[in-house]
Order: sequence, then structure tokens, then C-alpha cells
Amino acid sequence: MPQPTRKLLFTPGPLNTSETVRKAMLTDIGSREIEFIQIVRNIRNKLLKLADLKTCGPYVAVPMQGSGTFAIEAVIGTLIQNDGKLLVLINGAYGHRMVDIATRLKVPVDYLVFADTEPICLNILEDYLCKNQEITQVAVVHCETTTGIVNPIAEIGSIVANAGKQFIVDAMSSFGGIAIDFEACQIDCLISSANKCLEGVPGLSFVIVKNYWLKSASGQARSLSLDLHAQWQALEKNGQFRFTPPTHVVLALDAALDALEREGGVIARNYRYKENQQTLLSGMHRMGFESVITPSLQSPIITAFYCLKNSKFKFAQFCELLANRSMYIYPGKISSVNSFRIGTIGDLRKQDVEDLLMAIESCLNIMEI
Amino acid sequence: MPQPTRKLLFTPGPLNTSETVRKAMLTDIGSREIEFIQIVRNIRNKLLKLADLKTCGPYVAVPMQGSGTFAIEAVIGTLIQNDGKLLVLINGAYGHRMVDIATRLKVPVDYLVFADTEPICLNILEDYLCKNQEITQVAVVHCETTTGIVNPIAEIGSIVANAGKQFIVDAMSSFGGIAIDFEACQIDCLISSANKCLEGVPGLSFVIVKNYWLKSASGQARSLSLDLHAQWQALEKNGQFRFTPPTHVVLALDAALDALEREGGVIARNYRYKENQQTLLSGMHRMGFESVITPSLQSPIITAFYCLKNSKFKFAQFCELLANRSMYIYPGKISSVNSFRIGTIGDLRKQDVEDLLMAIESCLNIMEI
Repeated sequence: MPQPTRKLLFTPGPLNTSETVRKAMLTDIGSREIEFIQIVRNIRNKLLKLADLKTCGPYVAVPMQGSGTFAIEAVIGTLIQNDGKLLVLINGAYGHRMVDIATRLKVPVDYLVFADTEPICLNILEDYLCKNQEITQVAVVHCETTTGIVNPIAEIGSIVANAGKQFIVDAMSSFGGIAIDFEACQIDCLISSANKCLEGVPGLSFVIVKNYWLKSASGQARSLSLDLHAQWQALEKNGQFRFTPPTHVVLALDAALDALEREGGVIARNYRYKENQQTLLSGMHRMGFESVITPSLQSPIITAFYCLKNSKFKFAQFCELLANRSMYIYPGKISSVNSFRIGTIGDLRKQDVEDLLMAIESCLNIMEI
Repeated sequence: MPQPTRKLLFTPGPLNTSETVRKAMLTDIGSREIEFIQIVRNIRNKLLKLADLKTCGPYVAVPMQGSGTFAIEAVIGTLIQNDGKLLVLINGAYGHRMVDIATRLKVPVDYLVFADTEPICLNILEDYLCKNQEITQVAVVHCETTTGIVNPIAEIGSIVANAGKQFIVDAMSSFGGIAIDFEACQIDCLISSANKCLEGVPGLSFVIVKNYWLKSASGQARSLSLDLHAQWQALEKNGQFRFTPPTHVVLALDAALDALEREGGVIARNYRYKENQQTLLSGMHRMGFESVITPSLQSPIITAFYCLKNSKFKFAQFCELLANRSMYIYPGKISSVNSFRIGTIGDLRKQDVEDLLMAIESCLNIMEI
């Protein structure tokens, strides 16, 4: 069987995975087998080990099936009390999504919206929490793939903790690729996914949450499928998911976590992503593309670029020309700005980014720019 | 790399898949790529083609990520109105689960419980619908893997339709393995999963529902992630899932549907499963095991057997001895009966069942029975 051309996914996800990770999916395994139960236990332990927990108390890692949004909904639907109120800090699409989830679940919610290109304003948050004592939890997206901006979760966490609130971090696109110090950031609950910086395949997400908080949420979930407490209880009781898990996807995550450790952990992976992003940035600047986010706020995860102010530059054509070369990028997600995005995570190396830059140069030539 | 021993999963799922299906997962693909969008479209069409729709009007197939329970929750949470009332007919664990879902979602629900070993009683249903006009929908599990019993969905559907109610069928473990005539059964909505008789991998489920009904459910879902209407709308609009789909699992389902067609469709697959089950049944009877369900009600999907009335027969030991031979069976799920279950679906053939029977014989010898 001829190998299909390797597609290069310069997107926020689904991302490229290694052959080792994909080959882990070649085995069928029963979800109640001792071997599978042990793999799930290992994954939960490895996730806790990846989180830089220091001495900030006992946490648990709870895998949930579905994309990251499913896990976010499990958290909001399970952990926020009916007499509580969640405050969501928004500077991109994924902040808005958390509000949409809470609204749909009839979970009390409030929000502060900032510009997509600016980080969360700490003074406004501090003032808001002071004036709105009914807030019980604050949620923010760590790295907004809407733009690639990184929010200052240590500073936000400190304000949230000082106000006596609980802190929820959506670290979907950053966990495993950017070191997160749970103690310094005073994180009570973090959500992420198998298919971002962990480089597993999509279909599985997870929550790392303070033990005492999850324990207090028994019977509180607004959903059966997305009941984070019940999922945790089942895993503690017999090591099994409550409902048929995506066994192949679970095997892939286990292999991906081993690969992350072999690579040198979060620090080494962060280095690779930074190198990818720096290579991209200098190459794009050389060709006249300007980045949307100020360098000091820019993540190594994904970078937004302004479209060229040249009438010959049509994004749809640009995108299609790249796709013809098996390279995939995403349109922008900021409504007010004519932009596009290039991701630099997943199983991609500097050479892949250099190949992309060459392809972009060739596309611009074809477009006579 | 040495090939791992092939595990034989004689369970209700996860099941064995073919090498072709698993190898389809070796490709990374972007979820917004034209190629992937086309694959999702093909899957939706193939699912509709598999459903024997005849002339009973336009239906749509909507894939949802997650196990079957996720899709059941999407249906109950999206399609039942606040001023409606769902009646669930129960003769096993999966009927109870539908009630649990509705209760959690605060969807009005009523239920009739029958013995796990008996089919739904048609007279009781007819009488109940006559006396309880507020019921708007009736739901039943086609093949209850609790016991392996098949419920008479044509007769139930006829009563439901005559009473002017809508009919929901949980065909999780039967769709693709037992022919289902939508017209004769007067089905308004059917739910199934990729990893049962379709022999894809777990992590994806789907709903086949009457177009007009789904259309009427805009904004009605109690969840964002499990909003069946919004999922459908997104697929119709641009062919994309709303949230990152499990791309590898989707590729596996596409390959699995092609394999089903190559095998000769539902009729050929049903024949293979029946042959598996008949082989199992005669072999087990020969060794003194009695089946729980009357032959006329027994599905070819999974068979429940009474444990041997011999003090030397310990199910845990029996199960472990089989697991040592890479063969997996499940304990019983009927609380009142000391039983166990053996599944005969998935990528299993008569020879595999014969291997199991030989292994069982050898285990009984070891147990000195």
C-alpha cells in the first residue's frame, strides 16, 4: 500500500501526530480489561505529573470523551452551583463559547469582554470582583487560538484568589506546550485536550481539578454524559469509563504522553514550538506579512497575520494553493480584521515550517505578488 | 515490531475491527479540508442508504462524537419539548439509562418497566397510551445488550403511530446487523453507534431522524455540545462538525461502511452474526450452559447464559482463564439472575467462536468441571 502524502496541518487542530502515536491505534482492546484499566490509570497519573502542581494540594485528572468543548461543558455543568455565578473573561471566540455553554445550561454567568488583540485587563477584573461579590468562579482561556494571544494567568489567578474566588483555566491549546505552574497561577481547575500540545489524536479531553472541589459536586451535573463527578467516581471505583470509551484514541494519548516525556517534557516541547514560531515569524516578516499580536503577548502555538494589502492577495486562493501542496492554514477569526492564522504545534519541526515558507513564497509568485 | 496477539472481544463493545478499518486511522487530516468534508458527507449518505427508508419521507443522518449514550442524550435533550412527555419502555439497563438522561435534563418522562427476560408487552403499551394522552414520544431499545433480547419494534411502532406519537428507537447494538425497515416500524428517530454492527471504532455515534422533526427543534437543546439541531445545521451549512471531530475515528467509520457494503450489506452481516451465534449456542448447550432468553426472542448480537449450577464454577476465575487466552466475555447485567454474556458481533467469524468454545472447554477442565 503506497503511503499517502503527509499533510502538514498548520492549524489550531486537528494537528499532525507522529507515526508512533497513530500506530498505537492498530490494537483493539476491551475497555474493561485489566490492561486497559492500567493504561487509563497511567494516563491520569502522567497528566498530573505534567501539571506543575508543587505543593498546592491534591488534584485529580479526569479524562472525558469528546472535543475540548465537551470537557468545558462538563466543568461548567458540574462544578458551578445553582446559587453560584461564573465570571468569564473574554478576548476571543473561546471565551464567548464558555458563556454560550453556561447560558444554555442555565448556569448563572457574567462576563467581561476585552479586545481580541489585547490581554485581559487586570484592573478591570479586580474592580469587577470587588463590586460583584456574588461571583464564585472566574474562567479564562490561557492561549486564545482566535489570535494566538497568551493571557497572564498568574496575575489573573492572584487577583481571583485574593478575592476568594475559584479559578478555571481553559488551557486547551497550551497544556503540555507552555509550562503552567498551578501553584503560582492558583488554578483550581484546568481543562485541556489530547490533540493539542500533547500530540495525541482528537476525541478525548481532560480536566485537572482540586479534589475537594470535584468531591463537593456530587449530583450537581446538568447532564448524564457530561457529569464530571460521576465520571471521576467511576474511574476511582473500578478504573473504568462510565460509557464505552474511544479505546483507540486512549491508546494514542498514552503513546503521545510517553513521546512527550522522551522529547524532554514540556520544556523541550515548548522549545520546539518556539523555534517553529520564530522561524515562521521571521520568514513571514521577510515576505511582508505583519503579525496581529504584539510579540510580548504572542504564543508559540498559533500566529495571526494580516492579509497583504495588495489587491492581488485573495486569501481563498492563497489557502487553496497551499492545500494543493498538502499544507493547511486557517482563516482569521477576528471579525474586524482581515487576517489568517498559522499554527506551529503538533508533530511539526523547523524544517516543516521552512517548507511552508517556501510554499508560501511560491504561492505569492503564482498570485503575481 | 512484532504484531501483538489479536484479542477476541466477545463483548457488547468495544468490539473487534478489521485491519483495514484500523489502518484507516494512520492518516492525519484537517477537519476543514475539502477531502474530510467529502468523507463526512459520504458517511451521512451511506448511513441513510443503510437505513431501509423506502418511501417514508425525508430523513437526515447526523453524526455526533462520543459513545452511544452521548447521542441518546443529544436526542432526548434536543427533540423532546418542555411541554412534551417521553415514555420509555424498559426491559434492561439501556432503557433505564434513557430515563436517567431525561430526569437529569429535566425533560418530562414516564416509563413502563417489564421483566428483563420478556419483550415489551404490547397490550400494556396500547392501554397506557390510551390513558395518558400527554405522552408525545415513545422510546425503546431495539436489542437490549443487558440480555440480548430483541424487542418487536414493528409492533411497537404501529401502536405508537396509531396513538399519534413519535417513535424513537435506540438501535445501538443492532443497526447494520439486523435489517430495520423504517417504514414498517414507523420510526421517527433512530440512534446508533460506529462501533457496534458497523464495525468502526468507538468514539462516534449518529442519529437518523425525520427532517421535519429535527427542523422544528431549533434552539430547544439543553446543551451546547449535544445540540443535535445545531450539529445538523453546521453539517448542512459547510459540511463541518461544530467542534473538532475525532478525525481518525471518522476515517475508520468511512472504511467500515465500505467494508460492510463489500461484505454484502446488512443481510450478509446478519447471516455472519447468526452463524456466529448459532455456533456459540449449540457449543454452549453441549457443555451444559443454558441460555437466558427464549430462542424466538434471542438476537444474534449477544447471548446471556446462566452460570453452571456447580459449586466449582466461579465466574471470576472462568473469565480470567479466558482472558489469559486473549478472549474476553462480560458478566451478566440482570441483578436477579446469576449469568454471563457472550457477544458474537464485530470482526468475528465462525472459526473465532469455535476457538472460544474450545477455550471454554479447556477452562472447564482446569476448573475440574
